[in-house]
Amino acid sequence: MTLTLTPLPGIPMVRPGDDLGAIVLHGLEAAGLQLADGDVLVLAQKIVSKAEGRLVALNSVTPSARALELAARSEKDARVVELILQESREVLRVRPGTIIVEHRLGFVCASAGIDHSNVAGEGQADEEWVLLLPQDPDQSAARLRQRLEAASGARLGVMIIDSHGRAWRIGVVGAAIGFSGLPGIVDMRGQADLFGYTLRITLIAAADELAAAASLVMGQAAEGTPVVHGRGFPYPLREGSLGELLRPKEQDMFR
Amino acid sequence: MTLTLTPLPGIPMVRPGDDLGAIVLHGLEAAGLQLADGDVLVLAQKIVSKAEGRLVALNSVTPSARALELAARSEKDARVVELILQESREVLRVRPGTIIVEHRLGFVCASAGIDHSNVAGEGQADEEWVLLLPQDPDQSAARLRQRLEAASGARLGVMIIDSHGRAWRIGVVGAAIGFSGLPGIVDMRGQADLFGYTLRITLIAAADELAAAASLVMGQAAEGTPVVHGRGFPYPLREGSLGELLRPKEQDMFR
Repeated sequence: MTLTLTPLPGIPMVRPGDDLGAIVLHGLEAAGLQLADGDVLVLAQKIVSKAEGRLVALNSVTPSARALELAARSEKDARVVELILQESREVLRVRPGTIIVEHRLGFVCASAGIDHSNVAGEGQADEEWVLLLPQDPDQSAARLRQRLEAASGARLGVMIIDSHGRAWRIGVVGAAIGFSGLPGIVDMRGQADLFGYTLRITLIAAADELAAAASLVMGQAAEGTPVVHGRGFPYPLREGSLGELLRPKEQDMFR
Repeated sequence: MTLTLTPLPGIPMVRPGDDLGAIVLHGLEAAGLQLADGDVLVLAQKIVSKAEGRLVALNSVTPSARALELAARSEKDARVVELILQESREVLRVRPGTIIVEHRLGFVCASAGIDHSNVAGEGQADEEWVLLLPQDPDQSAARLRQRLEAASGARLGVMIIDSHGRAWRIGVVGAAIGFSGLPGIVDMRGQADLFGYTLRITLIAAADELAAAASLVMGQAAEGTPVVHGRGFPYPLREGSLGELLRPKEQDMFR
């Protein structure tokens, strides 16, 4: 089946308290798309975080002693480092320019996903604001899904993604940070291949493959389009959540 | 722009010496697709490896002392381990059931990408065969691209993918192991975002995002479709190669 990924046009600058459901529905209308059973919607974390008011003014942040120490080692703003620490369970690596953490949501990422770009606060233009990840992206996705399913009558999947670096390979790719109504992992264990061998590859991170695909069409710069509609997701939709994708620390060979 | 990914129907079982160009052109015809400038074609490594005759009969392999030692630690067939060692630069981790290596092609993966499924050799049905990765996937992609561009007159990108596990996250995702005519990394450094901040995310692994997207529509089981046609790849095509995506060992914080 063909997979079609369409970035929705005309998504406005999102502000705290904005109604994401209405924004997505308006974007779908602008794209000439009507939601159908099996469709998926993928949102960049940035607009979800903004709608949820996860902006923090840096001048409101007082760095702890530990943040000051990590700021010196990482050559980062100590106030941003303080927020990174507040949003993390564990610091895994520190290098000049880089802090890799286990986020409180369970995944490993740089700077706890705290974003300094495309962020404008409510105050003076020269104030510095940063954007934290949504409080609970699985729940954010579930709420939006409920809203969009109620409006459309269609059975949908909704996902929130961010861009994550990887061990071993250069560059970032889209990765799921929360979702509702679609599988995180598709388990092929026990299925036979064309020759009757058991499949070598048994756990497919379908949610992350969708996240990467949607990220590809979102872009990252000024012309970015933070909502993507997908049709033709090839696996059956079901309930699912981020936890499926998180490797327990004690089973991780590369921590 | 909408990205459309179409798995090509009717791809036959590929055998050593088969003409992949003809197979892809036939699949495009079966899908009713005519190649156009900017189109990309993504192939599963398995059919490229088979066409290139990278099958090895396990009864032809004599394990070295090191292979026997690693086979005991990993609980794997010592002959397969011997091939893993021959195909690798370095063994990174060994656990029961798992050997993670730096492949001779430069990327990190499990079992040197050696595949025991969907593999049939030329001999008796009960002989055991495995499939090594293509000798030089960038070159394989370049040859196929030349063939398809000559047949169509269109400017194309061609990529070969495999499924790779990740540090930190469960499940495999499609990853590029070789390509021609498309960017590995898209460098956004210096570009301003909507507020004039410099972008936080500056190196996008566009090739791996495409690989994951194509992998999503390929599937892994008996109904698998190992060739995907993509239209609407959102970045300008250019010359590119796998090396762009490989993080030098000395810059890798997670080795």
